[in-house]
Amino acid sequence: MSDIPKPIQNLINHFSKLPGIGPKSASRLTYYLLKKPNNEVLDFGNALSNLQKNLVYCSKCHNYTEIDPCNICQNPKKNPKQVCVVEQPLEVLAIEKTSFSGTYHVLHGAITPIEGIGPDQLTLDNLKKRATSEEIEEIIIATNPNLEGEATAIYIQNMFKDNNTIKITRLAFGLPMGSDLEYIDEITLSRALEGRQ
Amino acid sequence: MSDIPKPIQNLINHFSKLPGIGPKSASRLTYYLLKKPNNEVLDFGNALSNLQKNLVYCSKCHNYTEIDPCNICQNPKKNPKQVCVVEQPLEVLAIEKTSFSGTYHVLHGAITPIEGIGPDQLTLDNLKKRATSEEIEEIIIATNPNLEGEATAIYIQNMFKDNNTIKITRLAFGLPMGSDLEYIDEITLSRALEGRQ
Repeated sequence: MSDIPKPIQNLINHFSKLPGIGPKSASRLTYYLLKKPNNEVLDFGNALSNLQKNLVYCSKCHNYTEIDPCNICQNPKKNPKQVCVVEQPLEVLAIEKTSFSGTYHVLHGAITPIEGIGPDQLTLDNLKKRATSEEIEEIIIATNPNLEGEATAIYIQNMFKDNNTIKITRLAFGLPMGSDLEYIDEITLSRALEGRQ
Repeated sequence: MSDIPKPIQNLINHFSKLPGIGPKSASRLTYYLLKKPNNEVLDFGNALSNLQKNLVYCSKCHNYTEIDPCNICQNPKKNPKQVCVVEQPLEVLAIEKTSFSGTYHVLHGAITPIEGIGPDQLTLDNLKKRATSEEIEEIIIATNPNLEGEATAIYIQNMFKDNNTIKITRLAFGLPMGSDLEYIDEITLSRALEGRQ
C-alpha cells in the first residue's frame, strides 16, 4: 500500500471516514474521480471547502441556513402556526418531500443520558421561547421512534402540559406503506392496533 | 427542495454523481460532514482539489504517479522481469495486496469495439516497446474475466506469438475461495474442470 501516490492515498483515507463507505468503496470512488475532468473534481473540492463557510443556524428553527431567518421560516406559503419538531436537519429534508406546509424546529439531537446529552444540550429552551413569542397553534413532535426519540417526545409533552393554547401532537405509529403484515415486528403491530381508526 | 441552502444542495449534487451513491446517501453524507469540524472538511476539500494536480502517468507502467518512473517501477524489491498487465490502475492496488513481487503495465481499458475502444486507445504499443527495450521474461495477463478482457488477452497473446524469449501467462480461472460449488455458474465450473491440476 505504501507505493500508492500520496494524493490518491490521502483522498482514499478521507472517503473511508464517511459512514457506510469502506476502504474498497473509498478506493473505487477515488479512482473514479481520477478519470474525471479536472474542473469537475475541483468543483467537488470547492463544494466541500465552501460547505460550512456561510452557513449559520436559523435563529427561529435552528436549521442550517445562509440567511436568517431561513428560507422555510420566511416562506409565506408555510404556516408558522404549525411547528414540526425534528431531531436533525436531514429530517426536515424528508418531511419537505411530503405535503406538510408548516414550519420546523430542529433539536440537533435527542435526549441520550448515556452520551451525556440532556435537555439543555438541545434547542428545547428556544422552542419554549418560540411558544410564548410566536403564535403557535400546534407542535407536531416528529422525533425518531426509538428510545431516545421517545424520551425526547415525552419531555416535550411535559414541557407544554400546562399550556392550553398549543395543541401537542405526535406522528402516528403503525404499518409502513407497502409492508407485509407477516414481517411487521410485534411492537409496531401493537401500536398499529392501538392507533386503529 | 428549493429551500435547501445552496452550499448543502451543491455538495449533495456532487456526491450524487459518484457511482453507487444515490440521492439519499448523498444527503446523508453531506449532513454528516456538516457536523464535522471545519478543518476536517477543508482537508477533505483540499484532498479533492489536489488529487490530480501532481499526478502523471508513469512512462514505464502507465500507472498514476507523482514521480516518474513510479514507486513500484523504481522499487528494487520488485522484479522488473515479471510484468503483470491490468486494465485499470485500481487493479494494481488489488494485486499489490497479494504476494506478487513483479511490476505492472496498465492498459487503461480493454478492447471494446462497441464503445470504439480499439487496441490503439490502450497502452499496447508501449507494452510492445517495453518488451524490446526491457529484459522482460514473463508477461502475466490479468485482464478481467469478461468479453472485453478476453478479447484484450487474446490480442496480447497474438502480439507476442512470434516472440520466443518472453513467456506469456494468464491468471488461472476456477473456483473463487470460500465459494460453494452449488452456487458457482456453469462457465466458471467448466473452466475449473478444464484447468484441473
